[in-house]
Amino acid sequence: MLVLNEKDIKSAVSMRDLIDAIEEAYVLYEDNEFQMPLRSHVQDNDNILLLMPCVVKNSVGTKLVTVAPNNREQPVTQAIVVLNERDTGTPKAILNGTLLTGLKTGAVGGAAMKHLARENAHSVGLIGTGYQGLYQLAAACSVRDIKDIYLFNRTASKLPSFIDSLKQVIPVEVEIHITKNPLELVEKSEIIITSTTSNRPVLPDDEIAYNGKLIIGIGSYQPHMREFSHAIYRNLEILYVDTQDAIQESGDIIDPLQNKWMDESQIIPFSKVITKKITPIFSNDRPAVFKSTGMALFDLIVAHTIFERASEKRIGQIIQL
Amino acid sequence: MLVLNEKDIKSAVSMRDLIDAIEEAYVLYEDNEFQMPLRSHVQDNDNILLLMPCVVKNSVGTKLVTVAPNNREQPVTQAIVVLNERDTGTPKAILNGTLLTGLKTGAVGGAAMKHLARENAHSVGLIGTGYQGLYQLAAACSVRDIKDIYLFNRTASKLPSFIDSLKQVIPVEVEIHITKNPLELVEKSEIIITSTTSNRPVLPDDEIAYNGKLIIGIGSYQPHMREFSHAIYRNLEILYVDTQDAIQESGDIIDPLQNKWMDESQIIPFSKVITKKITPIFSNDRPAVFKSTGMALFDLIVAHTIFERASEKRIGQIIQL
Repeated sequence: MLVLNEKDIKSAVSMRDLIDAIEEAYVLYEDNEFQMPLRSHVQDNDNILLLMPCVVKNSVGTKLVTVAPNNREQPVTQAIVVLNERDTGTPKAILNGTLLTGLKTGAVGGAAMKHLARENAHSVGLIGTGYQGLYQLAAACSVRDIKDIYLFNRTASKLPSFIDSLKQVIPVEVEIHITKNPLELVEKSEIIITSTTSNRPVLPDDEIAYNGKLIIGIGSYQPHMREFSHAIYRNLEILYVDTQDAIQESGDIIDPLQNKWMDESQIIPFSKVITKKITPIFSNDRPAVFKSTGMALFDLIVAHTIFERASEKRIGQIIQL
Repeated sequence: MLVLNEKDIKSAVSMRDLIDAIEEAYVLYEDNEFQMPLRSHVQDNDNILLLMPCVVKNSVGTKLVTVAPNNREQPVTQAIVVLNERDTGTPKAILNGTLLTGLKTGAVGGAAMKHLARENAHSVGLIGTGYQGLYQLAAACSVRDIKDIYLFNRTASKLPSFIDSLKQVIPVEVEIHITKNPLELVEKSEIIITSTTSNRPVLPDDEIAYNGKLIIGIGSYQPHMREFSHAIYRNLEILYVDTQDAIQESGDIIDPLQNKWMDESQIIPFSKVITKKITPIFSNDRPAVFKSTGMALFDLIVAHTIFERASEKRIGQIIQL
């Protein structure tokens, strides 16, 4: 069995490899060539264990995610991925799932930026400077020639350590700017990413500011969570989602549908873009909007890709179980 | 994170340690000091992935079991166990779950033999000489002074390799006998274990043969599976079960209840014996009967015990994830 730790994963794959893998996942999603049962979960006081299995290609994979909100030294969300051979069930690999989740979420955002952002976009803004946000910015730099990064975090004291980590994952020539408020960030950025755990909109309610820009929502994966403001929907043509399940899961979709800020017919799975059933038309008069809630299929395709690349490059530690 | 492979597990714990662990699990079961959600499963053509999570003591554990009926070189049923810290969710160990399952099932049988078998029983018979049966016999030898082992398997050609494996796990002075049929086995054995995947009774339908003996059923964990014959129930006072769930799961309970061969009031969780709420009375005029279907709580307590002993003895491989 192959053990792939943080360092192994970073040397086995690039963000571009993973964006390719996510595009492959969208094709399988569109063709229904996978099996993904409902995730099950165990609640233990404040803590949660989530089990996310998926069968695809020649792997059966399970992501085991723990959420421990009172963690101080370790990350609140940690994960491990177990990959089994599809034919025989034999365990074939264990991967650091915490890094994998960050990279995967980054690659999902990256695939959206690749197809929906203005070709010559040079600026990206991030609201919510946590672990997931880090890899969104890495993904932005891998699909566009980014020159400026704008950051906003409600707790400003968290910015210096985030910037240290950010410098490890982006090209040296990119300039990093701290903004005073979300409106300044929105005005200066061509790609706007929200990656918070907020229950209220974190984007300003100003219509004009969003036209011609791409907005990517990464937080709000539960009904009580919100990041997008009413303004996003006033001028919206299409809301792309990474999975149809987002319609039941995200407060950024549930609330707008209830409030009739948009109609369900405006929600399009992004797999339609990747499989060329829909061609997104870039407009200076509207925002382009992508909402991600994630799914085990993405995690498994990413795990599978990391495993294949690592095996080819003989990266990782082989253990006898 | 600690990796515990087959060899590590065998040097970390004895069967007696694991029987103690199972008795501890029964106390926690009786006191309801655990969380064990329904196991979830993924069906992929003929193959199955089962996810069995459980929270107990300071561990959150998940057993991932694969069943691949067409396997020739690898075992049909394989497993891996992931243990996380309960406080923080951090993954702390990975264990070979295939051996762990064999040892656990053996220890569940062993705990039943310890409390229900005649004190001076010297003989044990096994019908169905597979991987699970091996550890039943090891458990029998660890709780009683066994001098004779009787074996029956429908496919006699499988016996030689089973006997080779058996000699690795039992004391050298025990004599091993192959029986011509199940009736001979039942007549010669004071403890009778069935460990098959049969859909029809494998025990003969002869009432007298069972009086004064202990019968342990390990197969029949699904409604269509049967091992026990009608005779077992005719003279039955109490049927001990390892978990209440057995009532819904095992054909050896479902069919007899439907046929009115016994009444549900005769089914007693074995945790009542371990916690001394019930004292089993040995009788020469009846069989003592124990039916096991297993539960994640047992697997997790066993994993937890192996992890603790291995950590104390500095056994296993520490890897950086």
